[in-house]
Amino acid sequence: MDKQYLFDLLTSVYNQSVSVEQALSSLKDLPYQDLGFAKLDHHRALRKGYPEVIFCQNKTPEQVLGIVKAQIEHESTVFGTRAQKEVLEAVKERYPEIETDPIARCFWRKSSSWKPKERVRGTVIVCSAGTADSPVALEAQHTLEISGHPCKNISDVGVAGIHRLFAHGDQLRKASVIIAVAGMEGALPSVIAGYVSCPVIGVPTSVGYGSHLSGMVPLLAMLNSCAAGLTVVNIDNGFGAACAAAAINEIPAE
Amino acid sequence: MDKQYLFDLLTSVYNQSVSVEQALSSLKDLPYQDLGFAKLDHHRALRKGYPEVIFCQNKTPEQVLGIVKAQIEHESTVFGTRAQKEVLEAVKERYPEIETDPIARCFWRKSSSWKPKERVRGTVIVCSAGTADSPVALEAQHTLEISGHPCKNISDVGVAGIHRLFAHGDQLRKASVIIAVAGMEGALPSVIAGYVSCPVIGVPTSVGYGSHLSGMVPLLAMLNSCAAGLTVVNIDNGFGAACAAAAINEIPAE
Amino acid sequence: MDKQYLFDLLTSVYNQSVSVEQALSSLKDLPYQDLGFAKLDHHRALRKGYPEVIFCQNKTPEQVLGIVKAQIEHESTVFGTRAQKEVLEAVKERYPEIETDPIARCFWRKSSSWKPKERVRGTVIVCSAGTADSPVALEAQHTLEISGHPCKNISDVGVAGIHRLFAHGDQLRKASVIIAVAGMEGALPSVIAGYVSCPVIGVPTSVGYGSHLSGMVPLLAMLNSCAAGLTVVNIDNGFGAACAAAAINEIPAE
Amino acid sequence: MDKQYLFDLLTSVYNQSVSVEQALSSLKDLPYQDLGFAKLDHHRALRKGYPEVIFCQNKTPEQVLGIVKAQIEHESTVFGTRAQKEVLEAVKERYPEIETDPIARCFWRKSSSWKPKERVRGTVIVCSAGTADSPVALEAQHTLEISGHPCKNISDVGVAGIHRLFAHGDQLRKASVIIAVAGMEGALPSVIAGYVSCPVIGVPTSVGYGSHLSGMVPLLAMLNSCAAGLTVVNIDNGFGAACAAAAINEIPAE
Amino acid sequence: MDKQYLFDLLTSVYNQSVSVEQALSSLKDLPYQDLGFAKLDHHRALRKGYPEVIFCQNKTPEQVLGIVKAQIEHESTVFGTRAQKEVLEAVKERYPEIETDPIARCFWRKSSSWKPKERVRGTVIVCSAGTADSPVALEAQHTLEISGHPCKNISDVGVAGIHRLFAHGDQLRKASVIIAVAGMEGALPSVIAGYVSCPVIGVPTSVGYGSHLSGMVPLLAMLNSCAAGLTVVNIDNGFGAACAAAAINEIPAE
Amino acid sequence: MDKQYLFDLLTSVYNQSVSVEQALSSLKDLPYQDLGFAKLDHHRALRKGYPEVIFCQNKTPEQVLGIVKAQIEHESTVFGTRAQKEVLEAVKERYPEIETDPIARCFWRKSSSWKPKERVRGTVIVCSAGTADSPVALEAQHTLEISGHPCKNISDVGVAGIHRLFAHGDQLRKASVIIAVAGMEGALPSVIAGYVSCPVIGVPTSVGYGSHLSGMVPLLAMLNSCAAGLTVVNIDNGFGAACAAAAINEIPAE
Amino acid sequence: MDKQYLFDLLTSVYNQSVSVEQALSSLKDLPYQDLGFAKLDHHRALRKGYPEVIFCQNKTPEQVLGIVKAQIEHESTVFGTRAQKEVLEAVKERYPEIETDPIARCFWRKSSSWKPKERVRGTVIVCSAGTADSPVALEAQHTLEISGHPCKNISDVGVAGIHRLFAHGDQLRKASVIIAVAGMEGALPSVIAGYVSCPVIGVPTSVGYGSHLSGMVPLLAMLNSCAAGLTVVNIDNGFGAACAAAAINEIPAE
Amino acid sequence: MDKQYLFDLLTSVYNQSVSVEQALSSLKDLPYQDLGFAKLDHHRALRKGYPEVIFCQNKTPEQVLGIVKAQIEHESTVFGTRAQKEVLEAVKERYPEIETDPIARCFWRKSSSWKPKERVRGTVIVCSAGTADSPVALEAQHTLEISGHPCKNISDVGVAGIHRLFAHGDQLRKASVIIAVAGMEGALPSVIAGYVSCPVIGVPTSVGYGSHLSGMVPLLAMLNSCAAGLTVVNIDNGFGAACAAAAINEIPAE
Repeated sequence: MDKQYLFDLLTSVYNQSVSVEQALSSLKDLPYQDLGFAKLDHHRALRKGYPEVIFCQNKTPEQVLGIVKAQIEHESTVFGTRAQKEVLEAVKERYPEIETDPIARCFWRKSSSWKPKERVRGTVIVCSAGTADSPVALEAQHTLEISGHPCKNISDVGVAGIHRLFAHGDQLRKASVIIAVAGMEGALPSVIAGYVSCPVIGVPTSVGYGSHLSGMVPLLAMLNSCAAGLTVVNIDNGFGAACAAAAINEIPAE
Repeated sequence: MDKQYLFDLLTSVYNQSVSVEQALSSLKDLPYQDLGFAKLDHHRALRKGYPEVIFCQNKTPEQVLGIVKAQIEHESTVFGTRAQKEVLEAVKERYPEIETDPIARCFWRKSSSWKPKERVRGTVIVCSAGTADSPVALEAQHTLEISGHPCKNISDVGVAGIHRLFAHGDQLRKASVIIAVAGMEGALPSVIAGYVSCPVIGVPTSVGYGSHLSGMVPLLAMLNSCAAGLTVVNIDNGFGAACAAAAINEIPAE
Repeated sequence: MDKQYLFDLLTSVYNQSVSVEQALSSLKDLPYQDLGFAKLDHHRALRKGYPEVIFCQNKTPEQVLGIVKAQIEHESTVFGTRAQKEVLEAVKERYPEIETDPIARCFWRKSSSWKPKERVRGTVIVCSAGTADSPVALEAQHTLEISGHPCKNISDVGVAGIHRLFAHGDQLRKASVIIAVAGMEGALPSVIAGYVSCPVIGVPTSVGYGSHLSGMVPLLAMLNSCAAGLTVVNIDNGFGAACAAAAINEIPAE
Repeated sequence: MDKQYLFDLLTSVYNQSVSVEQALSSLKDLPYQDLGFAKLDHHRALRKGYPEVIFCQNKTPEQVLGIVKAQIEHESTVFGTRAQKEVLEAVKERYPEIETDPIARCFWRKSSSWKPKERVRGTVIVCSAGTADSPVALEAQHTLEISGHPCKNISDVGVAGIHRLFAHGDQLRKASVIIAVAGMEGALPSVIAGYVSCPVIGVPTSVGYGSHLSGMVPLLAMLNSCAAGLTVVNIDNGFGAACAAAAINEIPAE
Repeated sequence: MDKQYLFDLLTSVYNQSVSVEQALSSLKDLPYQDLGFAKLDHHRALRKGYPEVIFCQNKTPEQVLGIVKAQIEHESTVFGTRAQKEVLEAVKERYPEIETDPIARCFWRKSSSWKPKERVRGTVIVCSAGTADSPVALEAQHTLEISGHPCKNISDVGVAGIHRLFAHGDQLRKASVIIAVAGMEGALPSVIAGYVSCPVIGVPTSVGYGSHLSGMVPLLAMLNSCAAGLTVVNIDNGFGAACAAAAINEIPAE
Repeated sequence: MDKQYLFDLLTSVYNQSVSVEQALSSLKDLPYQDLGFAKLDHHRALRKGYPEVIFCQNKTPEQVLGIVKAQIEHESTVFGTRAQKEVLEAVKERYPEIETDPIARCFWRKSSSWKPKERVRGTVIVCSAGTADSPVALEAQHTLEISGHPCKNISDVGVAGIHRLFAHGDQLRKASVIIAVAGMEGALPSVIAGYVSCPVIGVPTSVGYGSHLSGMVPLLAMLNSCAAGLTVVNIDNGFGAACAAAAINEIPAE
Repeated sequence: MDKQYLFDLLTSVYNQSVSVEQALSSLKDLPYQDLGFAKLDHHRALRKGYPEVIFCQNKTPEQVLGIVKAQIEHESTVFGTRAQKEVLEAVKERYPEIETDPIARCFWRKSSSWKPKERVRGTVIVCSAGTADSPVALEAQHTLEISGHPCKNISDVGVAGIHRLFAHGDQLRKASVIIAVAGMEGALPSVIAGYVSCPVIGVPTSVGYGSHLSGMVPLLAMLNSCAAGLTVVNIDNGFGAACAAAAINEIPAE
Repeated sequence: MDKQYLFDLLTSVYNQSVSVEQALSSLKDLPYQDLGFAKLDHHRALRKGYPEVIFCQNKTPEQVLGIVKAQIEHESTVFGTRAQKEVLEAVKERYPEIETDPIARCFWRKSSSWKPKERVRGTVIVCSAGTADSPVALEAQHTLEISGHPCKNISDVGVAGIHRLFAHGDQLRKASVIIAVAGMEGALPSVIAGYVSCPVIGVPTSVGYGSHLSGMVPLLAMLNSCAAGLTVVNIDNGFGAACAAAAINEIPAE
């Protein structure tokens, strides 16, 4: 419950312009829209600094289209992640104005009121260890773009040829936030976090095989990093890392 | 390798005020001090924004005292974590000017040049779910204090009586960064991250029993949070969470 | 062995209306029907308060049809769960009078003697955290309906937007039992169980990815809840949760 | 937030007998008492049907005594679990009127207003598989007694000599709720749940060795029971099982 | 190395009817046949009491046919397990005289010299908990048949309706060895092993879902059984259980 | 329930020498003795071929002495396993006639009616891989001795020096049953089971370190053996392996 | 950064034939080629003794072809592993001169300058336990061949028929390095490492089922080997084992 | 069985200077000495290139002293690892000439015939990431020294301050074998193996906390390294790594 909203509501009750029953009822109805099978939280963009995402992994094309429709009617930004081929095609067919990226498994349409953030610390860098980590790195980049944050990427700089990373030392040291994406043993974020002073967010990926446990190994390796200050998100969660980076990169109004 | 340092060194070589052999040798000797059993990285405070910590868990009192001595001689800030009773007593006996907190298992002495950070986003809040989570929350608070960041704490606001948390809604929404500490099922960071717009860092603790797996359950729960943008550190890692919060809270010079 | 049955049998032996050999033989034959590949326990509905379910996951359409046939001949209620598309279609084709729900993966036909339970505590509420949890929530709802218990559902009330849950506070506090279905970090049952006084049953789901371990994370999170009195069933086990809710909701005859 | 309380508060605001500022402030102060290191939730007994427990496992004797003192001053029921020898002795020395049970690792003092529940389904039975499971079974029994529910116990009826269980068939079939406590392979709750119609709650214990994984095996076995309707709590969580049993056994006012 | 063979070889060397070089060479060549991609151990039937099985799971139809061909040429018994549909069809097409059982995923042809074992303890019973456990139970039964041991089966006698098991008490108590097959919580072997005096072998199956971990739960439950003397084989390993039962059931020559 | 007993009881009822009520009551009282905290199953020796063991691991010296006292009064064989030093000393002090073996952590006293089994297959061999596996191997040997079975041991024959094992080839091939005890990678039972035709029982031990997972590695290695027919018991479960070996070694009466 | 290269660069700077800015820039550009989606490290063959491999598992045919093209243009050796059918076909179609092995899932083309290593310890032997381990063993053999090392293979010598292994004793004792490939319980490397004095590298495979955990069991078994000096690589990692063997087998120039 | 030995024995049999019975008996008696509780393998030093180690972790001081005595009588080198304080003191008291290192938990006495290896590739380097990894690194160094191999150490060069490692680039590139010891996230061996061409052996340590799983995280990270050719030993297994390094470093006689 938004405090300001609660305060205003209580004031209205105090002023008797709103009855007690109405007040109780308002608490139920306001901050989201009920589609039956989903409750859209249109206030989230306002409250959190990034739009409500449509996580498509466990949804049918029909369910995804239903949510997209509601968001378009509400003139919200539309942004979908983890969209398989059929979902991307269904979305593209119904809404040709929506952009799609099959490698990143994303689709999006910025709302008409979209504009870049004005008060930011600087540029977010998305680093990835290998070619196979691209889908996760791209998901993070699209999320930052949709959220209005400047973003650059550096790819294929894994620790087995560490000179490739250090060649980008300048860029890394100037970043405002770094998202470090790595599968296999997940050592890249440790090395970067020992090297720069800005916040670093590690994203383990499911790229690996055998005892890799589908990404549990780089996830745990990052959590046990000897480089203090590294924080971590779930395996393959490029979206979540970008949301965290956006929250860090936005300088709050005074 | 610090870029500025490398540039200066190359310039000196170019100016022939430093020979090639000396340059190669400098690369080896400069940025740390070798104690034989440990290499102190005095430049870290400069590079990273927080002092080199003495992680005491796997060290003997003698080893800890050796590192403290070198830091005091170097007039660095001294800061130790995970110090058991014998270590705290040994430190206190040899260096009575060093402060200790047995619940937080920490000791510290600010360097003479210590001063609060000037360019910060605001106040960091350390929230904890239960009384038993205090050692971890206190470790985070001491780290922030040593790093020069303003910090407040809110304790015992676990989700089983969630009205206790919402009573602090105002403070939470004004925080610049929130560190959310929780054992058991680790749900507190999810609820907070869905409620505020600032960056939230989850710290799972080993408080629990049975199928809790010594903290693996809240760790994994936080990583699987439905609240996008939450980042996570290792179990009981109050120090690491505070380092991340410090990096986020410090506004870089332009 | 049913005690009353055993008593009657012993009495018959005592009265010599049944021989010892017949008595031993009776113990073998009575309380189930042997189909060769399955032993139907027609007494279960009587004994347990809910019908014998056909768990279709590891059965061929032919095996399922065989069991359905026997139940229909015995005029039992028919109820199948975890039925994939081919099973549902095979059942529907052979027995058009049987109803099916593909999202819930269930089919059912109430026996002619079906009627709502008369002595119940009240209405069972099935809450779910996200749209993707629907199959599990629906399985629970169909099981309750078949068992003759009143049931309502509340969906998409996950903890990342916790105000959506509290908008249903009234309904929740009036429930006789609550089934709380959640994937991801599985925090919903904890929050609900701290909020209401009726029995709460947590159902973790396999909805999630990465370190979610196919539902082990919400399962363990629920088991480690800081809200005392929460009990838990297996991942995706909407049927089991509903059976437990039915047993709780039925007030035993005096 | 208790709905009735919120309604009354809003009514007071509407009647202008309470100002908006006071209302907001009330929301913060009322439903718990802040001891600095812990927030006592005196309303829980009212709200949940069982008293706030002092879980002693991660608390010092001093912290426990502080909470006991506050509860005694508030004339609440006092009830502590997981109390090691030193805690029990410290409590007994300071408050000789408090009762202790070292096997169950519990202490308690009923409030002066304690009385047995009036509207209950019947008697709760606590069954345990082996002698070594006693501490957990006793913790459940004390919790039920403190909560005002009638309770009986049946011990040492593990499945390796299953005739010992069936000798108690009568009692089991008359129970209103059964708590089944078992370590090793944890099969007891499955057998009981297939045998009776009342709700059954499984409590796995850490009694076992080798591949027992400190109780994970019976926990998972119970969750995978072929007996539908069995619900489960955390390893060794006798208290939690009893809270669930109490919620089930209490017939709500109409 | 077979001792008798070694003794004979040494004797031949001693008698100088075999040279040292020949002796060394014999050690290499004798007890198996090298197909290039596989080494057939024709002596195994002799040495171990059951034929060399063709475990088809990781083999192509071509590889399987190659081994079958060599065994047929050698007039050995042919016996394949874990054969998917394509393998069964390829075998049946090439060798119509070979029998197949698609539910058990087996094929076999007894050698012309096959005959039932003469010195056996009695009849092996294969018990299974549910219909879905049939493939594993059948694999065990075919293995016993091929090995020349008398065998009976009892199916669908899981512990949730334990009276179904006790109806077969007579047969169980007369068995020479019992193989108890169960998925879900895997409690059946515990109950049987507490009930009879003959050797009992537990076979966990992968039948289950959610936290079942593909059979790890019944496997671990059986290993932690409170019924002493129960031994266990790998998940779904009906063949291995039958080999063990055959070794037990065969009374060695004096 | 012993079939013969049930038959006799039914016959008595039929003859009216026992009333129905008495019969029902007998079913409850007979086959065990209730000590309050434990139910002794004196019929087990008869039913199972080995005595009821006192598993001391989770029992106080007082509880152990109570059970010993009841067994001595009943003139049963006394046999305790997993007895720590204090338990062994308490038993030895109260009952000097009881023998103890601190390495095996066992104590025992044969009943006056003890005698070697008459109908056995032959000699059981207990093989162990390393010196550190002795406690488990000795527990198995004492259990076999108490059960009246002939037994020999071969120790320190791990696979890293496999010629040490083959030096005992003769003995191994003559064994009636082999118990193979191994920690580390647990390969010994595989090698033995591929080498002999008698039944082989693998006992993994907790001897190891690092990724050994306290015995889970040899346990799982044995379960995944490429030598068909190997069966396995829990980690360190020498007693259980011996019970299984006893059941196998005893030739049932015809 | 190659030391010699750095020395030369510094010397050029010192001689002022290279400016400081150029020197810094050189550090970025030299030792790899940037394809946009991948950074080729052409120096690796020089630096490491084996060519850069194309690990195809997470790459599209297009990505693989792009890398192959760059390597062919650079006249490097081409070597791909984990190539599924579509990748192999795409490569073969575009570059008919490239050889492929579908069982090993590899393709390769030696560079024109390829020649066998001159200074080697001897012949590397690749041993495998079963037919199903062939893909992994072949991947190792192709890698050794491409790297210029002599190599032989011995297959189907698992420990359940250990005489098959000892028949190759001569070859094994003459090997310079042994790669031992095994699935199931993974005991082969232990037995070999106890038998020979050369370095032994264990490669666990995913061949197995049930509690095999997709290769985790042989992996952990090998790591816990009682044969000191055995080292281990990831599950199915024939390529990595061969790289290690190549590094061992190459005698460094003096 | 040593081939040469077997050949000689067969020749003696052929020459009839040894009878068949004696030959069989010789096979049993020769290659080890039986102490009753342990079988000493005096030939191992010869066969394997390093002495038989006394792994003290699961042995009593008495057992250790018994083995030391036999080795001293046999004039073998004595070398013990994982010796706790009591063992070290017992050894030192009885055999003052034996050297001890409490940090490494080792004791040793070279045999009179000890001398450095003559045919070696070069110097083995033992690198460790942090001060707390010293015990493991020292165990490796002592093992190499006892085995006669030249060895140097580099400590405290973890990846969070990676410039400390590169300062030793020269030494690393000249090493014949590198043992890389690391706890926490275990990234050091990956970085080194990407940097040098000699064989690298990773040793994960149990240094860490929380989700570190006592060393499983660095173990798995090393196994999943993106640097091909890295091989790995068990957690904390400095001895095993050194044995592997010794086998690699020794150039076999031609």
